[in-house]
Amino acid sequence: MTLLTVGTLAIDCVEAPHGERHEAIGGSASFLAAAAANFCPVQMVGVIGEDFPAGELDFFQNRGIDTSGVSRADGKTFHWHGRYEKDPNIRHTVTTDLNVLTDFRADLPPAFRKTEYVALGNIDPELQLRVLDQVENPKCVICDTMNYWIEGRNEALRRMLERVQIISVNDSEARQLSGEHNLVKAARAVRRMGPEYVVIKRGENGAILFSEDDVYVVMALPLESVIDPTGAGDSFAGAMMGYIARTGSHDVATLRKAMILGNVVASFAVEQFSLDGLRKLTHQQINDRYALFRKMTYFDKKLPFA
Amino acid sequence: MTLLTVGTLAIDCVEAPHGERHEAIGGSASFLAAAAANFCPVQMVGVIGEDFPAGELDFFQNRGIDTSGVSRADGKTFHWHGRYEKDPNIRHTVTTDLNVLTDFRADLPPAFRKTEYVALGNIDPELQLRVLDQVENPKCVICDTMNYWIEGRNEALRRMLERVQIISVNDSEARQLSGEHNLVKAARAVRRMGPEYVVIKRGENGAILFSEDDVYVVMALPLESVIDPTGAGDSFAGAMMGYIARTGSHDVATLRKAMILGNVVASFAVEQFSLDGLRKLTHQQINDRYALFRKMTYFDKKLPFA
Repeated sequence: MTLLTVGTLAIDCVEAPHGERHEAIGGSASFLAAAAANFCPVQMVGVIGEDFPAGELDFFQNRGIDTSGVSRADGKTFHWHGRYEKDPNIRHTVTTDLNVLTDFRADLPPAFRKTEYVALGNIDPELQLRVLDQVENPKCVICDTMNYWIEGRNEALRRMLERVQIISVNDSEARQLSGEHNLVKAARAVRRMGPEYVVIKRGENGAILFSEDDVYVVMALPLESVIDPTGAGDSFAGAMMGYIARTGSHDVATLRKAMILGNVVASFAVEQFSLDGLRKLTHQQINDRYALFRKMTYFDKKLPFA
Repeated sequence: MTLLTVGTLAIDCVEAPHGERHEAIGGSASFLAAAAANFCPVQMVGVIGEDFPAGELDFFQNRGIDTSGVSRADGKTFHWHGRYEKDPNIRHTVTTDLNVLTDFRADLPPAFRKTEYVALGNIDPELQLRVLDQVENPKCVICDTMNYWIEGRNEALRRMLERVQIISVNDSEARQLSGEHNLVKAARAVRRMGPEYVVIKRGENGAILFSEDDVYVVMALPLESVIDPTGAGDSFAGAMMGYIARTGSHDVATLRKAMILGNVVASFAVEQFSLDGLRKLTHQQINDRYALFRKMTYFDKKLPFA
């Protein structure tokens, strides 16, 4: 199956303990699409400005991503400038320039409207709703959001949540959205808002999947060098949804395996700046790291006491 | 096999978001022994004052713990008063009164000196060395330590580390001890100081086992209510070492399973104040939570790409 990804295409400036990168390609749509494309055909919707490097659209196309939903507008591309502390879970936004994103309407090309699997990056929930209004028969939708929308667009966000199957947020967002500090309670409260599955991303500390009567925990791979955490969450969600679209199922067993693959692909993403960790990623590398991750976490079913 | 546990016996005052408890039994030896006793016979070495409730020694004895190494001294028991934030990984020490601990010599009864498995709780490394000097033929020793000793007793600590097989510390301690921020690098540096295995405890975020060419990650069970995190790390280490002593082996496969069991037992410890979560713990409860934990984390070996 095909996956539709909607979000930002950005030009980032990233400062991290191991170096910095200017004019780096970023944005939720970029990472969602690049990660998902390892698993299924991808359609991408977003907006770029005049300064977006033409070669980058070629990169997406070469990875099997249909970029016909990416419009080019007059003006500059969305710019983000961020700085990471030694603890990669802590980041500071230096500047955000919306630029062409201000007038982004998220219009879907007619060919994209029949797509049943949808990944909604972190954008205004009104835009996320506009996308869902255009999709004729959505089967499984994942969404992300952030504190800015939870505070400023809560009503639209709540309407949007009634129409998604999976929400993927970090722990502080889950806490803010639910008003509950304990993550088990927070996830339960968020599930009552609509999503069948709540995925809580915890950066270096892995991720937890909550469904009706199932909790599934995934620890992040301990990496020797985390160069650039930008896009880790979107790479995680993109790979998850890519696998879900590939299998055409979103039962608990599929979601569990999708979480592992999200984790694996995100581990490649953070090892290099920008999209570089995903540019040449192969099926063999994903297989190998999947096997490594299993070796790192496996324990048998033999109970300690007979 | 039998496990020798050495550390503090304390009377704690604990303030936590869900309530507070005064005059609660705590200390590293208490949690180490109570956790280990689920798996093997335990010998306990420590000191208590005149105010230590007599019934508590009965509790230890009823759980199969030989308390003949616990001496009673004139004066008050070691007292600790701490406060936890909503994030249970953050705790503040309000007061520490060493009391009878000041003159604690960690003398082992003759019958304890032949014991081959040893768990050294977080005490002065000079005392940890004194214990090792008395043990005739140690086979596997685990130790804990803290920032206070890393700063103030570094030389003794380094001598002690040359004589232990496993060190179990939290992430900030591993960073401080090694001078490395990245945990993979920190663990490698700590292994060079002596221990064959480095276990990094990360509270709510699980634990990681580093050995020569193996990394094993364990995520903490997501619990609905964490009442009192005091003793979580000692319960973890105690159960680990109890299992190691039970099997009489400390190869990587045993260590891995020991980590899971450490995790399981610690999850019971934090669900109640003080030792209460361990007081009546049964083999059946440990088995059940082991199976639950496996269900929460399992994924099959089938690679995503054929």
